Amino acid sequence: MRMDVVILAGGSGERFWPLSRSCRPKQVLSLIGEESLLEDTLRRARFLPTDDGDERQVWILAARRQQDALESLDLDIDPGQIVYEPMAKNTAPAIAAATELMLADARAEGDSDRLMLVCPSDHHVPDTKAFWSTVEVAAEVALRERQLVTFGLTVTRPETGYGYIERGEALSGFSSPAFRVQRFHEKPDQENARSYQKSGSFYWNAGIFVFSALHMREELCRHVPELAGPLDALGGELLERRKSKEVIEPAIWERFFEAAPSISVDYGVFEPSDDVAVVPASFPWSDLGGWTSWSEYQEEDARGNRTAGAVLSVDAKRNTVYSEDGGLVALLGVQDLIVVRVGDATLVCPRDKAQEIRQLVREGKIDASFARFF
Amino acid sequence: MRMDVVILAGGSGERFWPLSRSCRPKQVLSLIGEESLLEDTLRRARFLPTDDGDERQVWILAARRQQDALESLDLDIDPGQIVYEPMAKNTAPAIAAATELMLADARAEGDSDRLMLVCPSDHHVPDTKAFWSTVEVAAEVALRERQLVTFGLTVTRPETGYGYIERGEALSGFSSPAFRVQRFHEKPDQENARSYQKSGSFYWNAGIFVFSALHMREELCRHVPELAGPLDALGGELLERRKSKEVIEPAIWERFFEAAPSISVDYGVFEPSDDVAVVPASFPWSDLGGWTSWSEYQEEDARGNRTAGAVLSVDAKRNTVYSEDGGLVALLGVQDLIVVRVGDATLVCPRDKAQEIRQLVREGKIDASFARFF
Repeated sequence: MRMDVVILAGGSGERFWPLSRSCRPKQVLSLIGEESLLEDTLRRARFLPTDDGDERQVWILAARRQQDALESLDLDIDPGQIVYEPMAKNTAPAIAAATELMLADARAEGDSDRLMLVCPSDHHVPDTKAFWSTVEVAAEVALRERQLVTFGLTVTRPETGYGYIERGEALSGFSSPAFRVQRFHEKPDQENARSYQKSGSFYWNAGIFVFSALHMREELCRHVPELAGPLDALGGELLERRKSKEVIEPAIWERFFEAAPSISVDYGVFEPSDDVAVVPASFPWSDLGGWTSWSEYQEEDARGNRTAGAVLSVDAKRNTVYSEDGGLVALLGVQDLIVVRVGDATLVCPRDKAQEIRQLVREGKIDASFARFF
Repeated sequence: MRMDVVILAGGSGERFWPLSRSCRPKQVLSLIGEESLLEDTLRRARFLPTDDGDERQVWILAARRQQDALESLDLDIDPGQIVYEPMAKNTAPAIAAATELMLADARAEGDSDRLMLVCPSDHHVPDTKAFWSTVEVAAEVALRERQLVTFGLTVTRPETGYGYIERGEALSGFSSPAFRVQRFHEKPDQENARSYQKSGSFYWNAGIFVFSALHMREELCRHVPELAGPLDALGGELLERRKSKEVIEPAIWERFFEAAPSISVDYGVFEPSDDVAVVPASFPWSDLGGWTSWSEYQEEDARGNRTAGAVLSVDAKRNTVYSEDGGLVALLGVQDLIVVRVGDATLVCPRDKAQEIRQLVREGKIDASFARFF
């Protein structure tokens, strides 16, 4: 079965403020290397592990307010492959819309179903081949066992910022291990995180999924019944447009997202569904969750500072600094700070408060005198 | 006797980096209020406490490399009243040059001498009347007792960053107290500073002086004999120009400063001279020695932060922040820091390391990759 890739690019990346802003989300930033995370994801999505004659279709779901930022990237993709969500409604409506689009596209071309690989646009996955090995196993599991398949990333530290997947019964007959999912666990406290790491049967949930569009549509309608009506309406309109090769006008998406409930696909579908499997993924991966995570990819100086850009440090230790091209950050005698200087804004916070940057951004956005900086 | 004012404006103010730069010294900054410190000093210098018919002449001695910065202020002063020192030779040559200029000017107008008030250009002295009350007493002492008179500022804390003046025998018959100087003390350690503060007979030396030009010239030639030759040569050239109302061309100053030794007027003249008096000065005064001193003039928020410009602080305490117009500094959970964001540069250092900013600036200046920021 043909597999299309859907890249979810609607995130805002508040934890990279002030490099990320409302109009410049994390996925358009070049956090590692020259390419933006989205360009890197697009390149990875298009990779063909075997020459099976298929050309891979890639679709991007992004937020309307980020359209300028995406267009500024000059992405090598037909604009018709990008769907702009008119409002933020979390991941279930986004995946539902993509699923309906895949089904309309399949039917317009005489197919009954499609496999879909859904992945975030802002993760760092340097080994494309290893990534696709896991995708292939996931595709086999999705097809042969009719499962919604999640990628289970190796737990390497007792991280409290991620959701966890607990594996159940092994699924046999695949080229590498696969399991039914016993249970999803939300972000744990430190103690639970440590026991998850020890147990060996837990994985990080990275939000990478493989499933058949038809199967996902069934599960969506079963577990989030408020989506059924809007999906039926959307499906009719999409099928017409795909058959006649017409442009899908924004009003179609507006009607759907307006009617859809705001709910995550994890909570809405994966947790209640009985047909969920996990494929362990051991490829190098980082969600680049914030400045601390970013700093791990920067070289360390003799005093443990990890910096990018023009940074002068005198008696300063273990700081993480990002200074935009053309600007200088000078540190004198400080330690364990995050200092980010981008354009008209500078952030200073302790390394161990990196997770609270989101909170600061939210406070900044609602304060009229500062909103323009966020 | 007519009194002219000489403002010494050659300082660089490295401790206010990155607001101050090589090309934008402290005295041209508007650190308190709208006016630059130099404009404020000029206004104070021109103040006439009594209508004695004299128009006060004010002269500015500045560094050649700061000419652009001074001109950008659009100072309300005849450019002929500004002498640009072609190179830094400390305060004795600067005061010697000013003294010779005063004498030439006096002679050109048929006078034999002038009183001179010499003061820095970058101090904060909010009460002009109180300042001039002290100047008047100093002028009486300089004339009647033939003394080089220094201003002795009230010691209000055991400051280790200033030089001290120890008073000796009282001079009687003046409208307020005046003393001969027993001894000058260089910047003390903490213990000595505390005993100076307790003793009651010590003052801070603020570098404000009143003396007769003729007397200062004699003392300069006596105690810094290397200055005698250059001063004689300078005097002849200046007298000619002042008589004929010609412009004093830069080459004249170049020859003098080239030939002059580099030495401070404190070390070269005031310390060895037998004719030095001190007039206690109780007017409000600050040398605005750096960001900590500056912060005392800013309002304090509920958590003890003192800031200027756009500053968003979340769980941040006792920080000193300067953010240039149009830029934002966001603090999250940090305390006791100095954060200064000006144009293309940001400084982060602990409040108790403010004195080391000079050192950082010096390191920055000699590093080719950073020199442009200093």
